[in-house]
Amino acid sequence: MNYQTVLNEIIEEVQPSLTRGKVANYIPMLAAVPATKFGMAVQSMDGETFKVGDADEAFSIQSISKLYTLTLALKDQRRALWKRVGREPSGTPFNSLVQLEYENGIPRNPFINAGAIVIADIVRSRVADCRRALLEFVRARSDNTAIENNSEVARSERETGFRNVALANFIKSFGNIDNVVDEVLDFYFYQCSLEMSCVDLAKSVFFLANGGNCPWSGEAVLNPRQTKRINAVMLTCGTYDAVGDFAFRVGMPGKSGVGGGIVAVIPNRLSVAVWSPGLNAHGNSLAGTLALELLTTKTGISIF
Amino acid sequence: MNYQTVLNEIIEEVQPSLTRGKVANYIPMLAAVPATKFGMAVQSMDGETFKVGDADEAFSIQSISKLYTLTLALKDQRRALWKRVGREPSGTPFNSLVQLEYENGIPRNPFINAGAIVIADIVRSRVADCRRALLEFVRARSDNTAIENNSEVARSERETGFRNVALANFIKSFGNIDNVVDEVLDFYFYQCSLEMSCVDLAKSVFFLANGGNCPWSGEAVLNPRQTKRINAVMLTCGTYDAVGDFAFRVGMPGKSGVGGGIVAVIPNRLSVAVWSPGLNAHGNSLAGTLALELLTTKTGISIF
Amino acid sequence: MNYQTVLNEIIEEVQPSLTRGKVANYIPMLAAVPATKFGMAVQSMDGETFKVGDADEAFSIQSISKLYTLTLALKDQRRALWKRVGREPSGTPFNSLVQLEYENGIPRNPFINAGAIVIADIVRSRVADCRRALLEFVRARSDNTAIENNSEVARSERETGFRNVALANFIKSFGNIDNVVDEVLDFYFYQCSLEMSCVDLAKSVFFLANGGNCPWSGEAVLNPRQTKRINAVMLTCGTYDAVGDFAFRVGMPGKSGVGGGIVAVIPNRLSVAVWSPGLNAHGNSLAGTLALELLTTKTGISIF
Amino acid sequence: MNYQTVLNEIIEEVQPSLTRGKVANYIPMLAAVPATKFGMAVQSMDGETFKVGDADEAFSIQSISKLYTLTLALKDQRRALWKRVGREPSGTPFNSLVQLEYENGIPRNPFINAGAIVIADIVRSRVADCRRALLEFVRARSDNTAIENNSEVARSERETGFRNVALANFIKSFGNIDNVVDEVLDFYFYQCSLEMSCVDLAKSVFFLANGGNCPWSGEAVLNPRQTKRINAVMLTCGTYDAVGDFAFRVGMPGKSGVGGGIVAVIPNRLSVAVWSPGLNAHGNSLAGTLALELLTTKTGISIF
Repeated sequence: MNYQTVLNEIIEEVQPSLTRGKVANYIPMLAAVPATKFGMAVQSMDGETFKVGDADEAFSIQSISKLYTLTLALKDQRRALWKRVGREPSGTPFNSLVQLEYENGIPRNPFINAGAIVIADIVRSRVADCRRALLEFVRARSDNTAIENNSEVARSERETGFRNVALANFIKSFGNIDNVVDEVLDFYFYQCSLEMSCVDLAKSVFFLANGGNCPWSGEAVLNPRQTKRINAVMLTCGTYDAVGDFAFRVGMPGKSGVGGGIVAVIPNRLSVAVWSPGLNAHGNSLAGTLALELLTTKTGISIF
Repeated sequence: MNYQTVLNEIIEEVQPSLTRGKVANYIPMLAAVPATKFGMAVQSMDGETFKVGDADEAFSIQSISKLYTLTLALKDQRRALWKRVGREPSGTPFNSLVQLEYENGIPRNPFINAGAIVIADIVRSRVADCRRALLEFVRARSDNTAIENNSEVARSERETGFRNVALANFIKSFGNIDNVVDEVLDFYFYQCSLEMSCVDLAKSVFFLANGGNCPWSGEAVLNPRQTKRINAVMLTCGTYDAVGDFAFRVGMPGKSGVGGGIVAVIPNRLSVAVWSPGLNAHGNSLAGTLALELLTTKTGISIF
Repeated sequence: MNYQTVLNEIIEEVQPSLTRGKVANYIPMLAAVPATKFGMAVQSMDGETFKVGDADEAFSIQSISKLYTLTLALKDQRRALWKRVGREPSGTPFNSLVQLEYENGIPRNPFINAGAIVIADIVRSRVADCRRALLEFVRARSDNTAIENNSEVARSERETGFRNVALANFIKSFGNIDNVVDEVLDFYFYQCSLEMSCVDLAKSVFFLANGGNCPWSGEAVLNPRQTKRINAVMLTCGTYDAVGDFAFRVGMPGKSGVGGGIVAVIPNRLSVAVWSPGLNAHGNSLAGTLALELLTTKTGISIF
Repeated sequence: MNYQTVLNEIIEEVQPSLTRGKVANYIPMLAAVPATKFGMAVQSMDGETFKVGDADEAFSIQSISKLYTLTLALKDQRRALWKRVGREPSGTPFNSLVQLEYENGIPRNPFINAGAIVIADIVRSRVADCRRALLEFVRARSDNTAIENNSEVARSERETGFRNVALANFIKSFGNIDNVVDEVLDFYFYQCSLEMSCVDLAKSVFFLANGGNCPWSGEAVLNPRQTKRINAVMLTCGTYDAVGDFAFRVGMPGKSGVGGGIVAVIPNRLSVAVWSPGLNAHGNSLAGTLALELLTTKTGISIF
């Protein structure tokens, strides 16, 4: 398969869609990103990286980071983890808090904010310097030691993130957070403020397409069974309340972020990352979703 | 792959689990089915059918029928269908009615009861004799002209199905049912009362593993794109409020019924059906889910 | 107190408000009522009836009838009744169905539709000819044998009342309706289609201001304790999801109907009925609520 | 009316009920209060104070304080206040958070925790030293300069009140809190930790039975219209999710606290306070509610 040709076609076809989405504006630094940015990178099984557009430009990965912290938590904890967070899709956005109440502080899955906060709490309890551990994990997965976080983004989110503070305290009231709430949130906002490029991101999730193995570090990040399971959770829970639509149109396990990035994998075939800041009504990158749909259409590759 | 060996192992291993589930008892004829029944059938790409246990015994397929009516509706209507029913997982069972209210009578997906009732309404509007059309469709897909419905089961469900009557009238109050409610429900209870064996069921969904083509009838039931999409909807919505857990453990698109049957497919590899009447807390066959999990574990086949 | 002077002032002051409300239009016969109709009648403790405007014109009493069926049910059943229906306000309209689900088919109070349907079921189980019994009860309370129901209104509501059919079947699914759903709904739609004037209505609820005694029939309808309690339920549940606002502004126990009527009482002082078809956002008569507020302001009478 | 005789009878009759309730135990200082404590005080229109049992012993008033802060907020702000907090009953406890979400951060009424936090924010914005202002208000209303708060109770609630922190941050995320969340909560936990006796409490709310006038301070605390309206809000919202039951059984506007206290008024007749630490399932004092019911039964006084 000539992925480069496919990527070249895709960037042409998505141009009219770039400005149809709405760039996140709840913090100044996200609002300042031009809607016309577009990058995409594919990492194939034979070790090649294909890329197009702004694929080397770092941007705010936001919720994509939930995939890394979940992996870190799973490496350590495994079964016990699923007692503290579910693995079912969350239904309507409307339900987030009522479901927490109905289900006694157990978030529905690790990819909604509530669940990611619990995962952050788990990682914080296990790892002495959790920020450093996460940064090293991400750098190793991406084969790029230059990756950093943006502390101004973290601070902005911290100052305006009242709803996340509410979520964390609500979960704490059910006893499902062990550490001090402020410290858990500091780590949570840290992870969201990491900045990576499409090339970094595509490489970083390649182990999920590769049975858990990371070729450049030579590390078995997860075993094959864990790998399949993370992919399953991504498919059913990775794109907010649009998982059904994403599976229907794209047909890959994927995880999106409010910065406009999406990562996805097709097991034993490829990993991919795309970036377009304009979001659709569900909070997923509008042109990014379209680009992934074009990728599956043009290559005929799908898990279904 | 020697599927027969695998099936022989599975039936041994699930024995202790057969009586751990709870047989549906809301109507007498379902309650009367022995919990010890177990059957399983695999239809492979090269045309072979493998089977074990009670795989030739017909049982009440119940909600598995929603897959057939959705296929019938999709053949005719396509895009318009998705304006009347969503394709997102439903969240907690608790939310079924509140979501209908919140979302103005548009059911979340075609596999919850509310959605299947809308699909039944769509089929009823398009096809003169919808019962006959459905029966012929099912017989053609299963290559078995002996398949019938059980009118006593249909009548029992009709007499006690107050919640479905409530759902249908509630949807009608939003204008999302065109026909007379009683006629739609008659068709709905008819479809649920069809009786098929594991062999019938495995054959009947083989087209979903085969790009939409049904070998024994020679018919292109759906095109490849529609086929992928039905599989995606099955994966994200096919097993009630346990879709995340089912994807996590089994990793196949599947559809279950309260009679204890489950059908599933792995695209380009196989279709499978399993039957064990005891249900888990989510209403899916307990030993049936385990059997499918064993199938993926033993064969290493998975979409993830 | 010269109530006639007060009524004369009120009808002047509400004129600009008559057309600010929205006349119910879900059935043709309600939609056809002119928004400019306005009537009001006060029944004082010394036996005098004061009236103004269209106070002698009969209109569709709709949900005001729930007060009569509750009284009938209470006469017979008392404590057992409160096991089948609560007496708490219902919160947002949004919650009607979810609360029924959460609270196992026990409606929150007898004045929401769900609760009134259960009350209709109770009356139907106790009284052989429940329509006749209700009609005789209403005629005796109003001292007017000419009161009738409007069968065309009942038929219209029956044909379009899918949401009430849904509610009744949903409650039945929890076992909280004993009779056949259709028969219960026939009685329910019958009661809503009664037609009475403001004079009829003010007289009909006078027993609630008078310790349970109906002067013109000489009957002790309820004992003083039951009377106080019905008034309490009216105050906390009688005006849909606007009970707080109604208590805040009007300060009387009252019951409204979608036909634009409201009845209210001040214990040991007066009973009152008002009619203006235009409804506010909560489904209560807009000018009718204002008229009652003016009555308490001008007379200084209030329970608070 | 000889209220002393009535109180003497009541304390006898409630004895068997004192230990049937459940003393609040979420903080140690509340858990330590003996369930056998019982006090009651009536303040009559002619200036006499009647009391029985532990009526002079100060206890933690908790949510009763919401009545004082609402009065303070109403004195200053009036209409604008009702744009930031509703005046409708809250429905089931289950709904607190979902209703906040559904209604964009506007709490249903000033007596649920969410509403009281908004009121605390309003008072904090208006009054320089809000703690001092509240303390002086309470002392003046009770004619007792010895009233204090318990700083250990405030600290305990602060340390364990994760749910209130969640509520406050959630409301802040909708823009309905102006001050820094921690400062608003400090004031909120301060008000809840005030300690008063039944005699203090009965005197403190006497102005609500007396058209807004406080005899011992000679101050017109509220005008008659405001007074009626606070009483209306108390009746429809003052006793958590048991307002209907409380109105049905007791028939007085009242406000309860988790410390086991309840205050109530009958306009132009009396104010009353009762204390019994054991709570019923709704969080209201079990024997306290019974004592108020006995008071209305024995005296025949009721607003209905």
